[in-house]
Amino acid sequence: MQIDLNCDLGEAFGNYSFGGDQHIIPLITSANVACGFHAGDWNVMNETIKIAKESNIGVGAHPGLPDLQGFGRRNMDISPQEIYNIVTYQLGALQGFCNLHNKRINHVKPHGALYQMGARDENIAKAIAQAVFDFDSSLIFVGLSNTVLISEAEKTGLTAASEVFADRRYEDDGQLVSRKEDNAVLTDKDEAIEQVLKMVTEQKVVTKTGKEIDLKADTICVHGDSAQALEFVKSIRDTLNKEGVSIKQLGG
Amino acid sequence: MQIDLNCDLGEAFGNYSFGGDQHIIPLITSANVACGFHAGDWNVMNETIKIAKESNIGVGAHPGLPDLQGFGRRNMDISPQEIYNIVTYQLGALQGFCNLHNKRINHVKPHGALYQMGARDENIAKAIAQAVFDFDSSLIFVGLSNTVLISEAEKTGLTAASEVFADRRYEDDGQLVSRKEDNAVLTDKDEAIEQVLKMVTEQKVVTKTGKEIDLKADTICVHGDSAQALEFVKSIRDTLNKEGVSIKQLGG
Amino acid sequence: MQIDLNCDLGEAFGNYSFGGDQHIIPLITSANVACGFHAGDWNVMNETIKIAKESNIGVGAHPGLPDLQGFGRRNMDISPQEIYNIVTYQLGALQGFCNLHNKRINHVKPHGALYQMGARDENIAKAIAQAVFDFDSSLIFVGLSNTVLISEAEKTGLTAASEVFADRRYEDDGQLVSRKEDNAVLTDKDEAIEQVLKMVTEQKVVTKTGKEIDLKADTICVHGDSAQALEFVKSIRDTLNKEGVSIKQLGG
Amino acid sequence: MQIDLNCDLGEAFGNYSFGGDQHIIPLITSANVACGFHAGDWNVMNETIKIAKESNIGVGAHPGLPDLQGFGRRNMDISPQEIYNIVTYQLGALQGFCNLHNKRINHVKPHGALYQMGARDENIAKAIAQAVFDFDSSLIFVGLSNTVLISEAEKTGLTAASEVFADRRYEDDGQLVSRKEDNAVLTDKDEAIEQVLKMVTEQKVVTKTGKEIDLKADTICVHGDSAQALEFVKSIRDTLNKEGVSIKQLGG
Repeated sequence: MQIDLNCDLGEAFGNYSFGGDQHIIPLITSANVACGFHAGDWNVMNETIKIAKESNIGVGAHPGLPDLQGFGRRNMDISPQEIYNIVTYQLGALQGFCNLHNKRINHVKPHGALYQMGARDENIAKAIAQAVFDFDSSLIFVGLSNTVLISEAEKTGLTAASEVFADRRYEDDGQLVSRKEDNAVLTDKDEAIEQVLKMVTEQKVVTKTGKEIDLKADTICVHGDSAQALEFVKSIRDTLNKEGVSIKQLGG
Repeated sequence: MQIDLNCDLGEAFGNYSFGGDQHIIPLITSANVACGFHAGDWNVMNETIKIAKESNIGVGAHPGLPDLQGFGRRNMDISPQEIYNIVTYQLGALQGFCNLHNKRINHVKPHGALYQMGARDENIAKAIAQAVFDFDSSLIFVGLSNTVLISEAEKTGLTAASEVFADRRYEDDGQLVSRKEDNAVLTDKDEAIEQVLKMVTEQKVVTKTGKEIDLKADTICVHGDSAQALEFVKSIRDTLNKEGVSIKQLGG
Repeated sequence: MQIDLNCDLGEAFGNYSFGGDQHIIPLITSANVACGFHAGDWNVMNETIKIAKESNIGVGAHPGLPDLQGFGRRNMDISPQEIYNIVTYQLGALQGFCNLHNKRINHVKPHGALYQMGARDENIAKAIAQAVFDFDSSLIFVGLSNTVLISEAEKTGLTAASEVFADRRYEDDGQLVSRKEDNAVLTDKDEAIEQVLKMVTEQKVVTKTGKEIDLKADTICVHGDSAQALEFVKSIRDTLNKEGVSIKQLGG
Repeated sequence: MQIDLNCDLGEAFGNYSFGGDQHIIPLITSANVACGFHAGDWNVMNETIKIAKESNIGVGAHPGLPDLQGFGRRNMDISPQEIYNIVTYQLGALQGFCNLHNKRINHVKPHGALYQMGARDENIAKAIAQAVFDFDSSLIFVGLSNTVLISEAEKTGLTAASEVFADRRYEDDGQLVSRKEDNAVLTDKDEAIEQVLKMVTEQKVVTKTGKEIDLKADTICVHGDSAQALEFVKSIRDTLNKEGVSIKQLGG
């Protein structure tokens, strides 16, 4: 059994710092690198790819909506054709920096609202996946487990990787409970660790209604922006290690 | 004898149209395509590369400063390292769309203030050229004839193409007379045609002081945003054709 | 009987021109001036207010969503509190230029997606109206006739003006037929003129299903971005004049 | 004797936090509030004015260049007329939020590169000052002591307040030593405190060449973005208090 741990990196912008990239890097196997639309800029991207190369973690493009002030977290009514172009632009820009450091892009994971919109709308999912496929058909497509992001990516011909969340609660249909609801986040650490274990070793999760549903778990989304978050990632790693699950980069 | 005719294309943005791309395309051999910083966006870029491919003209990247409101025409005090990153980002983004249409980038020409800053400042010129070289060392670098843009590009190892302007007056040192001066532009069409001929066939130009200086002419910058501009390009083509100069894409 | 004719002005940006402000101004009584978010910039705003003052037409603020590339026409999932702030910012910015020219803001009309979102969502409508009221309670609030934009503005304490569209078809509930539908626009000019007359003189409109519904008509939205559009406005003016309807600025 | 202590506030943007506004507020008498061009946004501005009102500190507008990615710190070649419009737009936007909280704008201080450009270029200084005067002639204009920012503001008819820097070294002509030079910053805290005292009580400063020059000190620029910075401000306050200098808001 193996699992990937992915984290968003390179989310600083201009004079604004963000997250604690250097602290989380030793704990993860894949980085989702912001491409300048919702976060990141040309300087941050160059530096982030350099560090990812040195740290030997996998690099993924993390394309987002063109909404810096909203951090790409607000749904926008954008046509699939335009989303295709938005994704293509960002993949290309990131590739420029990857070439400099002789580091390949390993995966693509849509960010924020683009990810959420894609998980719920087949046409959006198809547009994102097609842009990735047309850019480089060998890229691994990371999307929310059990959603059209995965099925559309696979239809396109891409290898899809199902993402799960350690500390988010699930709906019966496999979607994440919206952050607008009270019980969206598992605040009890032990409960979250237990959820991770079940997802990774049994490929199942207990939903908010108590129902057990199937879900595929290829990669776990983690965060590194606080001491608490870092501790939580270490606990996940320890637990998985004890269970004999190897923590390896996607596709590795 | 041969010469290239280049024109800026793809300068629309969102709801804003710009220029008359479809009218100038049959008259030119190379297009400088805006990359989303000073003009252009993901949709315009995709469409422009598609049209350039269909029209069989050369595609060049036209990276600019991050200043849409100023159309990239205002000098900004940006460090060479940041300029390197700015150019890399835009080259990558354009490459993404070129890949879609199976069209290669043939040249790079810095836009507006980036071009002017590079023509006057060795460190800026070097940063732009190095970014282009590191991205793809086979790209042709277009810069103002007789300036450090050309010499720095050649030092880097790139093939440089010297650009001349049909209707702009020259300083004794080969720089363009600033648009802030009254006599910056040749308003007499015949005089401009004569200047073009002299530049292409003799590799010389008469400066604003009446002095004749050497200059290399590999490509002529033309415009297509008015009926008058289009007529002027036709006149240039006719004159060059009569003199036996073949009009061919850079590197062709 | 009287009616106002309003048109969007000041939608140029940086190097990009837009519309034909100088041609439509003599034909209208109110201008909706872009405030730099979806269109317009500090230079355009200053110039537009100057011209509006000289032309003696009413000035309205035309606040939009922060989405220049989409021209403020894409719905965005923004909270009412943030919309309140977005409107406040733009009203203040426009007021700065109005002060320079000793010209008062007479009305406010939300732009594009902000207008559409407000016409359909009570909370959005309330947020926009409250921002306008808190900025200056004497401003006239222009919204789509028969929608919550009007009712929420009135609840807030503002004077509301009901806007009608000459060439757009109506739903039975008074909303505009979406532009995504085939029959959204009245392409027959005579039919459109007839619709205008009925709306202004009878305060009624025939919907897409053939039903006649009530609607209040205080101002008609017109456009000036083509020769055809200008001719259409002239026809509206002529027809209304013949019927004895006086064309006067809102609140005049 | 009295002096004002001013600090830049409201420099967060979207998802990005910045500085430690809540920690520095009790130590200062005036806040320079970012207006959304180099930093700040509509939400941050509203919140910052609210807090400034509650804290009873003076509010100043802090207009900057339209360069969020560069934090307004890069010189841009912008015409005086455009700078006039840029300042007007930002003053208006901030006024909108001040009206909400029934808090008046007390002063204006240009930010970053706009401040530096204005301190060196008479035409830029005049454009900024004229925009402030035309917006509200009762506003206090804060500029670098001994520069054209002060003289041009006074020529316009504004009350000018001369700003001094505790920890920056001065040129013989009263300009700040550029940050590009090694000795630009006084790293020894005691030396900085001594410089403050001399500036406030004697209206003199010792330049980098050891020369003593006159300078007017109405307000001291301080920072609150680190524990060290906060300690330094406390030391300045203590020293000034001991010397009987009262720390009071500009114009108070």
